[in-house]
Amino acid sequence: MPNDDRLPVAILGATGAVGQTFVRLLDGHPWFRLAEVAASERSAGRTYGDAARWIEGRMPDAARALTVQPCDPASVRSPIVFSALDAAAAGPVEEAFARAGRAVLSNAKNFRMDADVPLLIPEVNGDHLAILDAQRRARGWSGAIVTNPNCAATVAAVALAPLHEAFTLDRLFVVTMQAVSGAGYPGVPSLDILGNVIPYIGEEEEKIERELPKLLGGYVDGRLTTAGFGVSAQANRVAVEHGHTVCLAASFERRPTADDARRAIEQWRGVADVAGLPSAPQRPLVLATDDARPQPRRDVGEGRGMTVTVGRLRSDALLDLRLVALGHNTVRGAAGGSLLNAELMVRRGLLGAEQRR
Amino acid sequence: MPNDDRLPVAILGATGAVGQTFVRLLDGHPWFRLAEVAASERSAGRTYGDAARWIEGRMPDAARALTVQPCDPASVRSPIVFSALDAAAAGPVEEAFARAGRAVLSNAKNFRMDADVPLLIPEVNGDHLAILDAQRRARGWSGAIVTNPNCAATVAAVALAPLHEAFTLDRLFVVTMQAVSGAGYPGVPSLDILGNVIPYIGEEEEKIERELPKLLGGYVDGRLTTAGFGVSAQANRVAVEHGHTVCLAASFERRPTADDARRAIEQWRGVADVAGLPSAPQRPLVLATDDARPQPRRDVGEGRGMTVTVGRLRSDALLDLRLVALGHNTVRGAAGGSLLNAELMVRRGLLGAEQRR
Amino acid sequence: MPNDDRLPVAILGATGAVGQTFVRLLDGHPWFRLAEVAASERSAGRTYGDAARWIEGRMPDAARALTVQPCDPASVRSPIVFSALDAAAAGPVEEAFARAGRAVLSNAKNFRMDADVPLLIPEVNGDHLAILDAQRRARGWSGAIVTNPNCAATVAAVALAPLHEAFTLDRLFVVTMQAVSGAGYPGVPSLDILGNVIPYIGEEEEKIERELPKLLGGYVDGRLTTAGFGVSAQANRVAVEHGHTVCLAASFERRPTADDARRAIEQWRGVADVAGLPSAPQRPLVLATDDARPQPRRDVGEGRGMTVTVGRLRSDALLDLRLVALGHNTVRGAAGGSLLNAELMVRRGLLGAEQRR
Amino acid sequence: MPNDDRLPVAILGATGAVGQTFVRLLDGHPWFRLAEVAASERSAGRTYGDAARWIEGRMPDAARALTVQPCDPASVRSPIVFSALDAAAAGPVEEAFARAGRAVLSNAKNFRMDADVPLLIPEVNGDHLAILDAQRRARGWSGAIVTNPNCAATVAAVALAPLHEAFTLDRLFVVTMQAVSGAGYPGVPSLDILGNVIPYIGEEEEKIERELPKLLGGYVDGRLTTAGFGVSAQANRVAVEHGHTVCLAASFERRPTADDARRAIEQWRGVADVAGLPSAPQRPLVLATDDARPQPRRDVGEGRGMTVTVGRLRSDALLDLRLVALGHNTVRGAAGGSLLNAELMVRRGLLGAEQRR
Repeated sequence: MPNDDRLPVAILGATGAVGQTFVRLLDGHPWFRLAEVAASERSAGRTYGDAARWIEGRMPDAARALTVQPCDPASVRSPIVFSALDAAAAGPVEEAFARAGRAVLSNAKNFRMDADVPLLIPEVNGDHLAILDAQRRARGWSGAIVTNPNCAATVAAVALAPLHEAFTLDRLFVVTMQAVSGAGYPGVPSLDILGNVIPYIGEEEEKIERELPKLLGGYVDGRLTTAGFGVSAQANRVAVEHGHTVCLAASFERRPTADDARRAIEQWRGVADVAGLPSAPQRPLVLATDDARPQPRRDVGEGRGMTVTVGRLRSDALLDLRLVALGHNTVRGAAGGSLLNAELMVRRGLLGAEQRR
Repeated sequence: MPNDDRLPVAILGATGAVGQTFVRLLDGHPWFRLAEVAASERSAGRTYGDAARWIEGRMPDAARALTVQPCDPASVRSPIVFSALDAAAAGPVEEAFARAGRAVLSNAKNFRMDADVPLLIPEVNGDHLAILDAQRRARGWSGAIVTNPNCAATVAAVALAPLHEAFTLDRLFVVTMQAVSGAGYPGVPSLDILGNVIPYIGEEEEKIERELPKLLGGYVDGRLTTAGFGVSAQANRVAVEHGHTVCLAASFERRPTADDARRAIEQWRGVADVAGLPSAPQRPLVLATDDARPQPRRDVGEGRGMTVTVGRLRSDALLDLRLVALGHNTVRGAAGGSLLNAELMVRRGLLGAEQRR
Repeated sequence: MPNDDRLPVAILGATGAVGQTFVRLLDGHPWFRLAEVAASERSAGRTYGDAARWIEGRMPDAARALTVQPCDPASVRSPIVFSALDAAAAGPVEEAFARAGRAVLSNAKNFRMDADVPLLIPEVNGDHLAILDAQRRARGWSGAIVTNPNCAATVAAVALAPLHEAFTLDRLFVVTMQAVSGAGYPGVPSLDILGNVIPYIGEEEEKIERELPKLLGGYVDGRLTTAGFGVSAQANRVAVEHGHTVCLAASFERRPTADDARRAIEQWRGVADVAGLPSAPQRPLVLATDDARPQPRRDVGEGRGMTVTVGRLRSDALLDLRLVALGHNTVRGAAGGSLLNAELMVRRGLLGAEQRR
Repeated sequence: MPNDDRLPVAILGATGAVGQTFVRLLDGHPWFRLAEVAASERSAGRTYGDAARWIEGRMPDAARALTVQPCDPASVRSPIVFSALDAAAAGPVEEAFARAGRAVLSNAKNFRMDADVPLLIPEVNGDHLAILDAQRRARGWSGAIVTNPNCAATVAAVALAPLHEAFTLDRLFVVTMQAVSGAGYPGVPSLDILGNVIPYIGEEEEKIERELPKLLGGYVDGRLTTAGFGVSAQANRVAVEHGHTVCLAASFERRPTADDARRAIEQWRGVADVAGLPSAPQRPLVLATDDARPQPRRDVGEGRGMTVTVGRLRSDALLDLRLVALGHNTVRGAAGGSLLNAELMVRRGLLGAEQRR
């Protein structure tokens, strides 16, 4: 395709479950062309079709023939790099790519809480991208590291954004029921989860508790600020393929009624310049009308996996409100979120000179 | 069996899911003999083997040949009556049996919140049985109505009893993940729950919120008192056969550490004279040691379904403690609980004269 | 939409599970416009949005406002009528509609085995439609009854069509693993199927055994002929949402090798004038390359539910071949199949004069 | 326990899923005392409680403190050795133990098809143990290797034994629906099996096809003979925890009716001296009366997992009979089968001198 002037992009950790989701979502992308896939030494040198044990649907043909590269900026040349690397590997690799002038869109936890790194959900805190100036100055690189949050934190953040904006969160109780795809592949053994609930996901509660205040914080005077509310999180794994369900109970500074909250959610469209991006859903957040929704199997595909659905919005017996939120953990909560982050960077001209070729 | 001097007992609503659990648990019971089964007009007159579509394991032979009776005290003569009736039918029927001098052990919600009706979990509030005197006086009957609580409330109450006794609950957040057997049979359609979560169970949250303070309340000066803590409950259905998993976050008047709580739970044995009853488990409450427990499929059978297992006991980010509790919803949370209630009444000599034959 | 010159169509039994699938598939159909919905007396007179408890995804807006009609040709005026009625009701109703000059596309078993009624899978036996002349003469009506086969028989027939055409089936062993959606809604109770297999589906084996020889039979000298092979079928229900998996072992008159069979399947495109119909998939039958496919969750959506996927094609230890086939039971095996049948009738000009308006 | 005169036994591969089942079943065994556990180098030297990630229920206390040994006869001294080793490791290890005079009860496939090795299901072919004389002579060891068959083959063999004995099998079609526990732990990823069927299990079909004729063969003139029937097998994985369901269609030399078959099954008790062994169920084979049984979740526990349940016995459209069989794959089909094999050896005095201490 000699005329293809789409931006070449690469995926690090392309053979794993999140890496495969990137491959699927990039297939047919109007702005980005999957030019390179990279993975661990074990896979490097093989074709992607050979190296990746494909999990969901069909492998796009364009990916099949790519040769898997090692994860270093000398081998991988694309200006935009999506990282699906494990936290164990992500740190130095992502840093090396940023130092080499690339825009790194990372799913790993390593840099999420750094003061000069955006923890980005475009509709929620697209303004946080402004911190990239400080990042580039401080780190002395022309590239960038932009992270997307933990999958359960993402679902909660999108659901709460209009409420926090309107009423200012004070205290928040989060209990999650998370899909098995959140654990990657092979991930959760079937003997552990069939007909079962596992009330533990390593480090998940900590991530939810620390990421939410940063996600819903602001960008003020050249700094990212953390929102002042407290979070208590309990995380559970359930026998669901895709879709994290999140039970929320919250108090707010300006005590909304359920009707106040309903209006705030229905009117909310999120940060303005996100609308119309290739991966942006028509609505980032919808309110279910059926009293028994949202449900993962029935609502996870909303907005091609990029829309969070909330329901059961009602007053709480102890706090102000309770509600249930549901979002696609590997799309909105991982690869799709990263993609949207990259699209927003492109729209805002935030790629470095090298990155725009 | 002419020498069988076990007390004859009857089951109302014997063909349904909870009724069948009564039949299973009464099979081989050392004190009680299943003498009568009763159900709706549709089943009356048929043999139990013919009328009941048996759900779990094998129907006990002794039950198979019983003729299903209509649900009235003229047809059903046993002094002890276990009621698995739907709330829609339970009210007048249970009242008629009590008025006829029978001890009615009810699973229905109808009388649970009445001031003179025990809402009983023997190990937790066995002293509440003392209200029966007042009930008999006020209602002018020699029988009795003793209720057992909602299944999810039961699990939470057993888990919290030692903590409330030691530290006095202040605020409590409950989020449940409940098994499909809680909805009876046919109950939840498979198309609704396979690979899914349903964040709604009709009336469940209200029951949990109002029953817990009564369950953990006291019997003082001839009256049942309600505990002073507030409860917020969110109830979900998950693709689990048996076993309700309950996430709890709580604050207490005497702010316990996780270690304080651990000690309180490990030392707790519940009301003393319950130990040794036929349906009493060796321990009503155990603390799991594995960090990913309790789990419904792995822990639901503990104490033959009568033991509640708690785990993940840790300090909470906002309140004092959080923990996860798991109990068998149709055994401890329904038929097994009723059975234990009846056993305690027998031990305490609380059957009326008619009821002791 | 005054310019809408699409053919008006009606659905009988529109509120049930198959009826809802019709509603979904007709949404945006290029040739047909959903003009009327009909259901039992209980629903008649209410809006569809009110009468139907919607199961999957979102109810199309156009359907929501339709008033549910009673199932008789005086109330329902559309020339094309899709019947999702239960067998208990379908017989006289479908006949009345045919007698009133309508084309009835039926999912019910009632007329399937009648000698003058097509049991139609367009790509497999589109020529069977020629029997409609005889049907109209014999029954004295200007309408038509065209049936689509049992869902499991459909999957097997599509998979076997190229092999029967090329090698002539002799003996066939069928063992199915069928999705719960095949039982409608509420259908299979979750307590029956979670973590379970039910080795029994009422009447299913008989349907598979008698329908397959008619499906793969011919239209010769003005009569439908039955293929001469024998069928043994065993039907099982498994905990799958959509997609019947069918294990096949077969002998043929012209003993094919697995390679012969592979070629026959890969070259087969089915009856020629079906290609390009709105509901026709690009390929009615595809051969999976991965050795562990087809799988219901991963392959059921192939061809928007209209493609059957086969795999594991290999020689058999006793007969000639064995293979596994997978198809969408409520799309290809029910509503989608009916739709394609109607489309083929339109293309061939087989609607009566009344039906073409 | 100084007076414990039970035979000391060891488990090789004790930390895996089958190894754990051995540990569970040996807990409280009246004849055998779990004296030693052995596993790979990685685990050797650690306590069992530390090395084994326990999967089901609770680890028996007696096992917890045992030090894991390496898998060689110098380190492991017990006269009876249960092997749960993978086929990749089992060959030389099991041979070394037999050479060292131990009775090796193996679950691995390595020696199953050797002419001088019993492939044993006591009730079915207990007489095959007589081949041990030849084995000891030929191999020059005083120990023994006795294997138990593939789990699905076991279920089929028990179900078919009375029919083959009475009517002589001719042709047999087997289609299995197998539980995830058959794949060990972690085994089948939940993303592969939730709401899904996988129509492929590596090598399983070959094992079923070759083991069944040996299992149902005879011991004649000092040799094991293979039964003369042909077998076609198709193996599927389903979302079931425990219990392989097997659909069978068969022809026989003496063409039985379904009633003939029913009688044969009901009268069959299997090899006489197996009755009363500690692990022998009251009945090795029972015929379900309900038309929709057997079902894995409801029947797998029959005879504490040692009874095979058959149902749906009916005449076949092509052959003589079809039926469905269900058995516990990790109990009857693995560890429980091995245990029963060892018990039969003890009863028959087939342990070597060293082995009887």
